[in-house]
Amino acid sequence: MSLIVQKYGGTSVGSPERIQEVAKRVKRWRDKGNNVVVVVSAMSGETNRLIELINATNPTGTAREKDVILSTGEQVTIGLLSLALESIDCSARSYTGSQANIRTDNAFSKARISGIDECKMCDDLEKGYVLVVAGFQGVDNEGNITTLGRGGSDTTAVALAVALKADECQIYTDVDGVYTTDPRVVSNASHIPKMGLEEMLEMASQGSKVLQIRAVEFAYKYNMPIRVLSSFDEGDDGKSTLVTREEDIMEEVLVRGVAFNRDEAQLTVEGVPDQPGVASNILGAISDANIEVDMIVQNVSNEGLTDFTFTVHRNDYDQAKKILCETGKTLGAKACRGDDKIAKISIVGGGMRSHAGVASKMFTALADEGINIRMISTSEIKVSVVVDEKYLELAVRTLHEAFELDTV
Amino acid sequence: MSLIVQKYGGTSVGSPERIQEVAKRVKRWRDKGNNVVVVVSAMSGETNRLIELINATNPTGTAREKDVILSTGEQVTIGLLSLALESIDCSARSYTGSQANIRTDNAFSKARISGIDECKMCDDLEKGYVLVVAGFQGVDNEGNITTLGRGGSDTTAVALAVALKADECQIYTDVDGVYTTDPRVVSNASHIPKMGLEEMLEMASQGSKVLQIRAVEFAYKYNMPIRVLSSFDEGDDGKSTLVTREEDIMEEVLVRGVAFNRDEAQLTVEGVPDQPGVASNILGAISDANIEVDMIVQNVSNEGLTDFTFTVHRNDYDQAKKILCETGKTLGAKACRGDDKIAKISIVGGGMRSHAGVASKMFTALADEGINIRMISTSEIKVSVVVDEKYLELAVRTLHEAFELDTV
Repeated sequence: MSLIVQKYGGTSVGSPERIQEVAKRVKRWRDKGNNVVVVVSAMSGETNRLIELINATNPTGTAREKDVILSTGEQVTIGLLSLALESIDCSARSYTGSQANIRTDNAFSKARISGIDECKMCDDLEKGYVLVVAGFQGVDNEGNITTLGRGGSDTTAVALAVALKADECQIYTDVDGVYTTDPRVVSNASHIPKMGLEEMLEMASQGSKVLQIRAVEFAYKYNMPIRVLSSFDEGDDGKSTLVTREEDIMEEVLVRGVAFNRDEAQLTVEGVPDQPGVASNILGAISDANIEVDMIVQNVSNEGLTDFTFTVHRNDYDQAKKILCETGKTLGAKACRGDDKIAKISIVGGGMRSHAGVASKMFTALADEGINIRMISTSEIKVSVVVDEKYLELAVRTLHEAFELDTV
Repeated sequence: MSLIVQKYGGTSVGSPERIQEVAKRVKRWRDKGNNVVVVVSAMSGETNRLIELINATNPTGTAREKDVILSTGEQVTIGLLSLALESIDCSARSYTGSQANIRTDNAFSKARISGIDECKMCDDLEKGYVLVVAGFQGVDNEGNITTLGRGGSDTTAVALAVALKADECQIYTDVDGVYTTDPRVVSNASHIPKMGLEEMLEMASQGSKVLQIRAVEFAYKYNMPIRVLSSFDEGDDGKSTLVTREEDIMEEVLVRGVAFNRDEAQLTVEGVPDQPGVASNILGAISDANIEVDMIVQNVSNEGLTDFTFTVHRNDYDQAKKILCETGKTLGAKACRGDDKIAKISIVGGGMRSHAGVASKMFTALADEGINIRMISTSEIKVSVVVDEKYLELAVRTLHEAFELDTV
């Protein structure tokens, strides 16, 4: 008997009718002899409704109380899906994050999972229940309700799959898998049936919206295969993307896809002394505020002074800029400035490892279109650039064509 | 330093603006040097919205899952009120029923409180926090979320007041206290500034909607004074009704008020053997289904056979009738029948104890208006009758006048 963990996002459970459809799909998997654990998000629109209530009351209040409010969205869905399963004779039991004992730290609104106590759930699984678990939420050591931040339901699903030693973690969304880039930007983007977890990690972290980056990190760390499917397909054998470890993939391609992200903002502190401890001073203050930093670039120093640039999520831009300018002042910086009208574009592919020339081909293609590159950052299997936001679509189409991704 | 427990119902917290008003009131009590614990209901309309979602999904599903869904209503309010208190520099912490450790049995949708572990709350109180606790909900011994049923927030407030040894339990509603009867039925009903807990218990159980009966039972058992106030009064010195123990009330009046209830249904099993064990057989089956029985009347037997009549909440009518008819069959009953178009009307007063003639005055007044009495039930301080539903308003006005309640 296999154990499958499935996750359904907000649009998949957006109405009682959609929830009934999800219930039927879950039952089909159960009837094939699988044990099934289902992770669900809040019904689409619900989280925004709750955020409006919060903003009408006190937008700058403590994150602890906001999490108490936001976590109710998924709690409603787990109850409704369990009721829908019961109505088609599929016995089910709901679990809040707290009941499932999804332990997190106490970084309210962006908590990280530290462990899952699976004991009680295993009992219920053995009794034949489908378990319906609230995504996006957990509980800290003092019993406070925490949320994992937007997209955290994917992370809940993968973490549960790992804790329960599931055979596969299925992420149901409104698309039938991963494409070489966003089809809304490039209409002839190609569907990818199978790709590496490391590639997906770079695709996700570079802004592909299909899977949440922390979920892929979890899957990568614990080697959990993820399958991305559409909950809008009628049957269970539609297109999907299996994301698995690299050694299971026969042929590594040079460039798997083009990812992009317009949710970031760029911050620079200019003319700080180029000496040990400066970078950690700057980033330490940002990190203490629980702000995540993505790209980091430091130029070579000039007359003992250097410039230091990094990107953060746009939501954190104002706060990060304030912190940076204060830190810059204590370090004697010449100036601090930022820009939140930027876009990041990345090419990702496991085959890059063994091929030179990918980066230069990328830069040439962009230059040919007159697109100025403001920052560059590379890893073994990706190259990212930051450009003016206005060039986003043009840059993505240019790179998709340059690497012939429409023909894969 | 006094400890005050306050409870605010759904209309009092019906919008972010109303929640701000509640926050200001709570802060005024806090600023006067009191420790304050606040119990809140779901925002008005929210519970009905959730019930609609449930009914659109599976109206006959398990109560466990319904409670998971319904309990989110109060959870949103505790977060919002805590945020509103923070916004006016009044530090606050929210508690779900589970976090407050409000222990209940596992009778989902109508659970009863078995105990409250106040330790963690006392810590937070000592630190100066206002505690904001979700009413209507608790947790069973296995960690399942339970709800106390409609009106259960009053019970939460009184139970917390008892557990925390509060000085007073204030119930804020949309009316400024208890009246001799419902002013919507009798326009010259009189406000009652002070009354006995035992009287309130009879008023509540006989259908006065101001306080929830189980809350009054709790207060009566543990001798906790309750004050009923309006959350729509501007200041803190408007009219109110203090409900306290009888010995604190100087003068007991003959009839305190007229209560009524159109939420009940009547059930009869005819021609069952008049022998020991029959009544317990009949009521045992009803009680096993967790249906509460209110009035019980058994007529004297005739040729060894007797009729047995009782009332239940109208929501339980269909289920109770089904159970009764099945039980009746096994007991060899001649017939079983019911009526859900009835009303119950009661006169209540601590002074009745020492005065004869109150019941006969009541029956005469009703007879003079041609109102037929179908059932009678009495206690030390109340007399209740069941009449056709259509006579409800006439009967209430008649009794209010007969006992001169407009002049108290």
